[in-house]
Amino acid sequence: MTETKIDHKQLKEFTLQLLCASGGDVTEAEIVADVLVWSNLVGRESQGVWRLKELLPSLRSGAISSPCYPDFMQKTDSVVVMDAHHGFGRYAGQVAMQKSIEMARQFGVGLVAVRNSKHYGAGAYYAQLAAREDMLGIALTNSARRVAAYGGTTPVFGTNPFAFGAPLRSGESVLIDFSTSAMSGSMIRKGAETNESIPEGVAVDQHGNTVTDSKHEGYTILPFGGAKGYCLSLFVEILSGVVTGSLMSFQILNMLEKPLPSARIGIGHFFLAINITTLLQLDEYYERMEMLVAEIKKSKLQMDVAEIMIPGETRWRNYAEQLREGIRLDQKTTESLKSMANELGVATPW
Amino acid sequence: MTETKIDHKQLKEFTLQLLCASGGDVTEAEIVADVLVWSNLVGRESQGVWRLKELLPSLRSGAISSPCYPDFMQKTDSVVVMDAHHGFGRYAGQVAMQKSIEMARQFGVGLVAVRNSKHYGAGAYYAQLAAREDMLGIALTNSARRVAAYGGTTPVFGTNPFAFGAPLRSGESVLIDFSTSAMSGSMIRKGAETNESIPEGVAVDQHGNTVTDSKHEGYTILPFGGAKGYCLSLFVEILSGVVTGSLMSFQILNMLEKPLPSARIGIGHFFLAINITTLLQLDEYYERMEMLVAEIKKSKLQMDVAEIMIPGETRWRNYAEQLREGIRLDQKTTESLKSMANELGVATPW
Repeated sequence: MTETKIDHKQLKEFTLQLLCASGGDVTEAEIVADVLVWSNLVGRESQGVWRLKELLPSLRSGAISSPCYPDFMQKTDSVVVMDAHHGFGRYAGQVAMQKSIEMARQFGVGLVAVRNSKHYGAGAYYAQLAAREDMLGIALTNSARRVAAYGGTTPVFGTNPFAFGAPLRSGESVLIDFSTSAMSGSMIRKGAETNESIPEGVAVDQHGNTVTDSKHEGYTILPFGGAKGYCLSLFVEILSGVVTGSLMSFQILNMLEKPLPSARIGIGHFFLAINITTLLQLDEYYERMEMLVAEIKKSKLQMDVAEIMIPGETRWRNYAEQLREGIRLDQKTTESLKSMANELGVATPW
Repeated sequence: MTETKIDHKQLKEFTLQLLCASGGDVTEAEIVADVLVWSNLVGRESQGVWRLKELLPSLRSGAISSPCYPDFMQKTDSVVVMDAHHGFGRYAGQVAMQKSIEMARQFGVGLVAVRNSKHYGAGAYYAQLAAREDMLGIALTNSARRVAAYGGTTPVFGTNPFAFGAPLRSGESVLIDFSTSAMSGSMIRKGAETNESIPEGVAVDQHGNTVTDSKHEGYTILPFGGAKGYCLSLFVEILSGVVTGSLMSFQILNMLEKPLPSARIGIGHFFLAINITTLLQLDEYYERMEMLVAEIKKSKLQMDVAEIMIPGETRWRNYAEQLREGIRLDQKTTESLKSMANELGVATPW
């Protein structure tokens, strides 16, 4: 398959035009475009502009409202409950984390619980927003039911990803972002498009039999790491699903269950920002992080391992490279973008 | 081996006497005794009164200071940095979580970062303190180096356990508490005492070879769940080790490395309490938790599974049973307690 390289600014402008031509509010669409293109830049294609093929129809069907005029209910100096009114999850996520950061700047810690939102994409994006401001950031979200409890075969949880960011002196950050399921939904779906099979131990049918065919209907994903992964799924569900007052994952049909395109699915997010300078001097913090990173890097290695990576390190390498040399898009993505652009009368930049 | 049953109040009084006879301050010792006996009650013997055989010598050697007169540095309405002055980790943990709860009651969220503390035992204890007050509680701690980064064979992290509590209407709580390593240090050490071998995939030597002999010197524990467990170890390390200004796990010798008995090892903890009523009405919260628990319980089951347990459920069953019928102590523990009691001139209650 041929690959197209495109400048990130051009891709962002193009994304913005597609979103606006489909009815998106320009202020919100700029933020959504930033989240999507950032995901491409760091090499998370499955959370990047590839998602426009879901976002544009959702905008047109009214499943996503734009502008959404979110409500911010300021509960205390450090706590906000936000109703995203079925707007873009990526917009809701960005403004919610910014609100957390603002509160943390003044009060040391900021917590925003979001209800009635949509899929927000890569949690690492929101975590790095906090890290950029010299804060620790936590971003959690629930999602459509896909994942069994430990010992079960039917879906209760979403893939409920856990994201965390911590700044490094370089301007990059430690970026942790993983689904609490044995494999992320987007990885399986991206695999299904290229007919890749699901690895053993990842998915089961209702009877508990292993499923490896990624086109199999109605499989359930298992939690990662056994009982501990189940605990972490539940942790994410309580913080993002229960206390936000949003839908809980088990109440949300997944794509294989074919929810109506107009279904107004309200998922929940949880954001926490912690101001590092409230706890210790920034210079001391950076020095300590450098010591920790150095210690990890000087580990003796397992036989087949060339280097121990710090979480986020590969992401930032991709980011620097694609910022400089352009974002690589595979043929399937460019074709899908082109066909949407043609339909909307938007010129493709390649 | 014979088993002794002892009333929890008697065991607590006995524990208090042993601690005080070894130089512990009575106010602090009462809290430490409560944490230890609670751990026995819920069935976590490896974090229970069995630990007195480490605590009493540490008190006498001065490795643990009691009273420790902790410093509370109130940074904002919601954030405290606490210096535990090398006091009991269990005392430091209890007062720190209580402080978090107090702040959360007034300001929605309370965060306490603790430095210069000691091993605090079962994180679930502190998590349930928050849950008892209708709050969500998070308790994190670093610990002596035992665990490799993903891909490494030498220790960087402690077993860095993650604990979380969320109340249920019954008065019990969801209690999540797991080491971010493939197996907890206390499980391996308790296993070593009864000559149990370490399961495959849990520990390696410096060359990366599997270690199954629990008496092997210098093995390294692997993170649980591969790269995700490594990410979570790092998350716990940053929150409890880096930003608290305490020692980081890699700076702390583990027991196999035979640190001097008088070594003043300062580990770090991180506590967060979130006031549920700041986010939504308590009744709505309980109703939502009941729906979630019911959904988990009605999962279709894997072949060899009788029932899906909610995290903490088994703990609270043990708690109720042992509260009623007495705490079961194995012969090794009663012998060890008796020998310490004889030495200190304390009468054993059985």
